[in-house]
Amino acid sequence: MDKRELILDTMQELFKEGKAGTASVSDIARRAGIAKGGLYYYFKSKEEVMDALVEREYGSIIKTCNQVLDCSGLNAIEKFAVLLHTYKSSYVDPSLDEYLHMPQNAAIHQKSLSQILLSLSKVITGIIEQGVQEGLMVCRYPEEYSQIILSVFTFLLDQGIFCWTNDQIILKLKALADILEKGLSVKNGSFSFLYDSRSN
Amino acid sequence: MDKRELILDTMQELFKEGKAGTASVSDIARRAGIAKGGLYYYFKSKEEVMDALVEREYGSIIKTCNQVLDCSGLNAIEKFAVLLHTYKSSYVDPSLDEYLHMPQNAAIHQKSLSQILLSLSKVITGIIEQGVQEGLMVCRYPEEYSQIILSVFTFLLDQGIFCWTNDQIILKLKALADILEKGLSVKNGSFSFLYDSRSN
Repeated sequence: MDKRELILDTMQELFKEGKAGTASVSDIARRAGIAKGGLYYYFKSKEEVMDALVEREYGSIIKTCNQVLDCSGLNAIEKFAVLLHTYKSSYVDPSLDEYLHMPQNAAIHQKSLSQILLSLSKVITGIIEQGVQEGLMVCRYPEEYSQIILSVFTFLLDQGIFCWTNDQIILKLKALADILEKGLSVKNGSFSFLYDSRSN
Repeated sequence: MDKRELILDTMQELFKEGKAGTASVSDIARRAGIAKGGLYYYFKSKEEVMDALVEREYGSIIKTCNQVLDCSGLNAIEKFAVLLHTYKSSYVDPSLDEYLHMPQNAAIHQKSLSQILLSLSKVITGIIEQGVQEGLMVCRYPEEYSQIILSVFTFLLDQGIFCWTNDQIILKLKALADILEKGLSVKNGSFSFLYDSRSN
């Protein structure tokens, strides 16, 4: 097995056991069964291991999203709905999520939010461009629209940054659906999948 | 002078001198000419002093924005433009801004972004509600629209989180203007003030 992957797997195990915060670089190396110098060959610091682990976790989610969308034969609006479903149902280690929301880890949290935004915005840009080609949507700024959507999801709806009630979240999702339906010139209700599952 | 204000003024001076990062609670108290216990009466930690200073800085900007808007007699779209201008031209201590963008201060930075969003969203909600009353805008979700706008400004356009070129920022502002004009049913070009000053 690739040593880099081995180190990341080890870090992930430490998370599951709640030991990620206190583990030193030596602890990680020992647990992975490699020399400390071996770890330093791949990562400059524990922070870099963390960054890489977060990147791997979200990278694999985005890969799954892309795979689901590529073979789907769906139209752009259906793809939006499938993307949301795939993303929401993908498993993020709860201990990793908790770690990212601790105040002392705000820097890596912020970095992870911007990474997710940049990666997912490519996926959504592709969907909007498809919608324009299909004649389903009108949009002069597919990439920027994607980033606006993702700013809402990654920042405004992050429950570690804000503390919204479920009703408040539903209202925000209804407003997002409303502004997107008008902005993309699609039929009223086309984006109701954004809030439907929460309203039940 | 109020002791709490005195402590915040002292913290602000330390910022200007680039000593905010290294100053201890004792340093701050000594400089303010009060006992350490006196400082602890108002603040539990240096972090709390920082939080309060950030809140005071942005609070005063928002107060200015509200004052400018209250006595203006402008319509809703004009108020949007004035708000943007007032906000952009208000002075935030560059050393404070720099401090907030250091990785180790990401937690307080994130908190400050959410505070700005929550405070400014009240101002913008008022403007949209005025626009609806004037018959200039159509909007079922004034508060949520405000928060979507502010997610773009406080998160997506934060140059400490992302690194956009000026052209990329202009495109994002054009996309925001586009989605708002459609979302609020106002005339094409009404929100061109969002990007006009940057395009020159």
